[in-house]
Amino acid sequence: MSYPSARVGIVGGGQLARMLAQAAIPLSIDCHGFTDDSDESTATLIPHHRVTIDDPGAWRDLVDVVTFEHELLALDRVRVIEATGLPVRPSSAVMSLSNKATQRRRLGELGFPVPDFVTTTTADDIVAFAQRHKWPVVVKLASGGYDGRGVWVVDDIDGLSALPIDGREFVVEPCLMLEREIAVQVVRRPSGDIVVYPVVETVQRDGMCREVIAPAPITSVLGAAAEQLARDLARAIGLEGVLAIELFVVDGELVVNELAPRVHNSGHYSIEGCVTSQFENQLRAVLDWPLGSPALIAPHAVMVNVVGSDVGDPTDRIADALLINDVHVHLYGKSWRPGRKLGHVTALAGDVDSARRRAHAAVHALGGLAMDA
Amino acid sequence: MSYPSARVGIVGGGQLARMLAQAAIPLSIDCHGFTDDSDESTATLIPHHRVTIDDPGAWRDLVDVVTFEHELLALDRVRVIEATGLPVRPSSAVMSLSNKATQRRRLGELGFPVPDFVTTTTADDIVAFAQRHKWPVVVKLASGGYDGRGVWVVDDIDGLSALPIDGREFVVEPCLMLEREIAVQVVRRPSGDIVVYPVVETVQRDGMCREVIAPAPITSVLGAAAEQLARDLARAIGLEGVLAIELFVVDGELVVNELAPRVHNSGHYSIEGCVTSQFENQLRAVLDWPLGSPALIAPHAVMVNVVGSDVGDPTDRIADALLINDVHVHLYGKSWRPGRKLGHVTALAGDVDSARRRAHAAVHALGGLAMDA
Repeated sequence: MSYPSARVGIVGGGQLARMLAQAAIPLSIDCHGFTDDSDESTATLIPHHRVTIDDPGAWRDLVDVVTFEHELLALDRVRVIEATGLPVRPSSAVMSLSNKATQRRRLGELGFPVPDFVTTTTADDIVAFAQRHKWPVVVKLASGGYDGRGVWVVDDIDGLSALPIDGREFVVEPCLMLEREIAVQVVRRPSGDIVVYPVVETVQRDGMCREVIAPAPITSVLGAAAEQLARDLARAIGLEGVLAIELFVVDGELVVNELAPRVHNSGHYSIEGCVTSQFENQLRAVLDWPLGSPALIAPHAVMVNVVGSDVGDPTDRIADALLINDVHVHLYGKSWRPGRKLGHVTALAGDVDSARRRAHAAVHALGGLAMDA
Repeated sequence: MSYPSARVGIVGGGQLARMLAQAAIPLSIDCHGFTDDSDESTATLIPHHRVTIDDPGAWRDLVDVVTFEHELLALDRVRVIEATGLPVRPSSAVMSLSNKATQRRRLGELGFPVPDFVTTTTADDIVAFAQRHKWPVVVKLASGGYDGRGVWVVDDIDGLSALPIDGREFVVEPCLMLEREIAVQVVRRPSGDIVVYPVVETVQRDGMCREVIAPAPITSVLGAAAEQLARDLARAIGLEGVLAIELFVVDGELVVNELAPRVHNSGHYSIEGCVTSQFENQLRAVLDWPLGSPALIAPHAVMVNVVGSDVGDPTDRIADALLINDVHVHLYGKSWRPGRKLGHVTALAGDVDSARRRAHAAVHALGGLAMDA
């Protein structure tokens, strides 16, 4: 059986595209970036094209399949590319779930557990929801938010003044008492095979994921439930590629918080921590190649994000971080700015405390923001 | 403490430079290739410059340190670059050991175990050596040979007709009864720290390394002796970077066969098999950064080279290879030609037979030359 040589187009040029481009090298896959950003983590790695390219047919000359590192390309443009016959994976139907309002409604229709919610554009509806459920409530922009931006915890009616009520759609939900936040990556190829990564715990600060602990310290029953939910969801939506599912554990039960139809920060640990990384499996999935094992290769893997602090550029301090034994440092080639996600560190170990200590020590050496900062 | 951002120049653009460029990405190191080859494994990955660049000072504007993926740049050119003040690691003195005659003499002077040998340009000297030691003898070109090219086993005086006796220097040695061929990578940074990779067994066919088994199935005494030899040698020659040492086991004793002052095929298993790959440690060493652990992360790692056969291009068959569980496929982006080294496959496992079976199955699926072909 013979396959054409593979050319994968990636919409976006940030760190996720960078790690996809890196995973493509040993498989001899040619990646092409579609992006109009100037500060690109992939600038020197792969050929670039304007994402606003006028002739969608031109994409077909460049690549065999299109995938995404973000959800910012307008859906109607995604559909135009699909209409040319070029495979777009995941499809525009799956990408439409990037909108949190669409996502929440669809998850509810499909019978997956979600928090109570309303979608609205008005302050009145938010107040009505809060009166039914009690304050505080969580209000999220349906689209455009990330890393805690576009999410507000609103304590009372006065707190509504912080919201940009300008016609954009919000999702409103109760402020749940979370036992834990967990996440899981599921990968499905067009021909149907599915693999599910270990369930991980995600630790947030100010709405940004800061630490990921694999596997999550949860019961095997809950872990199995999360894995089954991931498989069912991948099938239900016709997933092609990686889907990251962020879940809340509330009263011992799973509730789906958010979906991201792409490789995801909660899966970066898989580069060194798993037999096959989420990045390699994303490429394999969108090319409809056999998927690789998502099994952990060590008892524990811990990933800590390197978020810019005011001490300066982590790139200048990398040699200090490499003094810490057995850590894997990833910097994204992005310019330093306090609060910006600039890299991550992964450590594997036989016990989770040892992995956590080493990963945090390396992040500290890099001048990254401390978890308690 | 602050470090400048790192720019590493690599002389060469083949698979070793490709794997160095890949290892550079997470560390945010900018690699530059210096090569005049047209069929480059790094062509789309890193910026390229002509190695025959006239003004050696121009190299200083491009990079902070120069290293090598091969030994083909004339030593006088290496010395000219060094004279500009640009760090060249390893130094021209170490690179001079790439010449097998120089290498053998120097190893003898330093007291390391080497086979009996003479260096010569004449057939008469080869005959005289054979009469002292008995036929057959092994005759190697002092420079320019690789993967079995430039090496002849000469059975008798008539066999000399196969040799290119044209004034080039040869190393002549007895045809030893080998129990085993083993190899070890040692890494030293300029400030002196040394790490040594596990001792591996290398399996050759027609003078080309085809399979590497880590760790080598040898006694711990012999393993410790090889490791000590590697440390002593790295110090004795003032190594900066990775040195691959190929050793013969003869009558239970170690004999140094050959040195390569660079990352090496016998260390490719380290990409997935060790905490830190030889490629990452080469970059860390030449930048005088702290070295990473060379420890194996699984009980066994096996690497098998993908050598072109007449069935066609492995790139067309990659999806077939990915059906094999738990293998890591590396293709080098080189055009297919029977007999050419086009990639490698690594498998890790709890038992060596399982790792070997999977690696060979993947190579077979890729259409690579079988070990018994």
